[in-house]
Amino acid sequence: MKTHTIIVDTQGSDKGPSSVIKGACQALDKFADLRLCLTGDRSVIEACLAENGADTGRVYIIDAPEIITNYDHPVAALNQKRNSSLVKALTELRNNPDCEGLVNAGSTGALLAGSVMFLSKPGERTRPALAAVLPAEAGGFTCLVDTGANIDCTPAMLVQFAHQGSDFMRRLYRLEKPRVGLLSNGAEETKGNKLVKETHQILKSEAGLNFIGNIEGTNALSGDCDVLVCDGFAGNQVLKNSEGIARRIITDIVRYAKKTGEPKFMELAGHLMAMYDFNSLGGGIVLGVPKPVIKAHGAANEASIVNTIGMLLNLAENRDIYKEE
Amino acid sequence: MKTHTIIVDTQGSDKGPSSVIKGACQALDKFADLRLCLTGDRSVIEACLAENGADTGRVYIIDAPEIITNYDHPVAALNQKRNSSLVKALTELRNNPDCEGLVNAGSTGALLAGSVMFLSKPGERTRPALAAVLPAEAGGFTCLVDTGANIDCTPAMLVQFAHQGSDFMRRLYRLEKPRVGLLSNGAEETKGNKLVKETHQILKSEAGLNFIGNIEGTNALSGDCDVLVCDGFAGNQVLKNSEGIARRIITDIVRYAKKTGEPKFMELAGHLMAMYDFNSLGGGIVLGVPKPVIKAHGAANEASIVNTIGMLLNLAENRDIYKEE
Repeated sequence: MKTHTIIVDTQGSDKGPSSVIKGACQALDKFADLRLCLTGDRSVIEACLAENGADTGRVYIIDAPEIITNYDHPVAALNQKRNSSLVKALTELRNNPDCEGLVNAGSTGALLAGSVMFLSKPGERTRPALAAVLPAEAGGFTCLVDTGANIDCTPAMLVQFAHQGSDFMRRLYRLEKPRVGLLSNGAEETKGNKLVKETHQILKSEAGLNFIGNIEGTNALSGDCDVLVCDGFAGNQVLKNSEGIARRIITDIVRYAKKTGEPKFMELAGHLMAMYDFNSLGGGIVLGVPKPVIKAHGAANEASIVNTIGMLLNLAENRDIYKEE
Repeated sequence: MKTHTIIVDTQGSDKGPSSVIKGACQALDKFADLRLCLTGDRSVIEACLAENGADTGRVYIIDAPEIITNYDHPVAALNQKRNSSLVKALTELRNNPDCEGLVNAGSTGALLAGSVMFLSKPGERTRPALAAVLPAEAGGFTCLVDTGANIDCTPAMLVQFAHQGSDFMRRLYRLEKPRVGLLSNGAEETKGNKLVKETHQILKSEAGLNFIGNIEGTNALSGDCDVLVCDGFAGNQVLKNSEGIARRIITDIVRYAKKTGEPKFMELAGHLMAMYDFNSLGGGIVLGVPKPVIKAHGAANEASIVNTIGMLLNLAENRDIYKEE
């Protein structure tokens, strides 16, 4: 069986390394073709692997106890903390052709900056975007880009996101012409803030894109488009607001279950919880770098680490998506 | 019994006048202290009132068959269509001290522009904002402002929304110091786009406001603040995205009900539908004008017309909120 090697940075998450390592062990059990490279504190990792009865024959460790935290300045930390688990992970991803992806649950800023610094060649560096691939109402998936890496944007940046998201969805899901939508406050092309109106005019005549026009918030995740383009401020609202409303409705159902004493409502709440836990479902995908990098949620639990690793394995199966870039 | 007179513009909605008039008749049945002024085509109104068996002793009609549509330029239409039902409604609201509010389900732009042109004195005109009062997760209500009247904003405009929303919630719900939050992509004051970061610095030291800091999308409607300030583009996303996700989850529940054949799930779907139909629940409130004006949803059904009239009656009970301004 062909195996795929995924790197997991065990440090930097809100819950500490044990939760990330436990998730990695569960992924080893779930995916027979998975090999893991774990970066972090060797003694902590070894203890955790033993505790979880991991198949250590499919794991190698790069000892790097130094940690880049959310309090560090991303670029300064990447330059100074050369023995950090993130720097070691990025270096391994760049240098080892067998490694096909990286998961990190730490500082988003450091991961974005580091992905470009370590993976892209100096002449080929573009601003990275952070995308989320979310289940669409109509079935299939919508790639929301940007979700928060680029808060203040120009029209040129949104056009770049359109291309990055389109390439990603075309290659990952073998879509011939991914439908690109632009998030706005109305479907008509006259609707939008200054940024959106200017971007709309460029996208209309941009070559190599299947631009279908503006998408309203009501239909952001309905499946009307395969790629939904917006600035990182708006994308962050879509992602977090969806999560907030879903959480709220599920809480309502739990309350209703208690009020009515009907156990079936609790079952339903559990079913919905699994469907709408967007933030931990997949994680954020760094677009614009030559190898797949995923930012897991800072509070990622074991299941979400398993999911992000699964996503990287799917990408590895279609790895020409990165080779072509 | 003291009665309250509310004006309903019967024209301009997507569903035509009969749906609006039917809602008005239901409101007459529901609220014994309600008197109505209906503007529009007299023959249509009279036929509808008769059909619905309305108590016509509590209704007077201002004949104005001309219609301002969504295709008209708002200010031009207000100046040219002097016999339109909207111009007649606004004129009556300004001139008749007994009239305590206006509902319209037509062009938002014309209603906003008209409210300022007809209701505010030339020297006292401020830019109007469109707010939504939404049920908060923790109980109570959150006033979201702006929801789409002001798409491109300056920090000064957001500060104005903070005051308008704060005054509104203070007086309507008798809150001593409404908590004002600023929608952002993170709770820390360093988070936000350029607009939000600049606004945060002003709000921090603005007198007369109880500013509590940034609110993330996850908690937009959780009840952490009484007034949530944002530009109209972002507010439109919060409103429409919430609606979209709620609709989607309810659809999931209906599907699940069919799959499992369990009628209780259909009951639950109905219960949630009533709670999360945000857009038709209350309608948009025009802030910054001396008398209460509500924009009902263009596709408003009878129930939502009843709701908006009920909201205006609540405001009328607390009408000093407008007298003080």
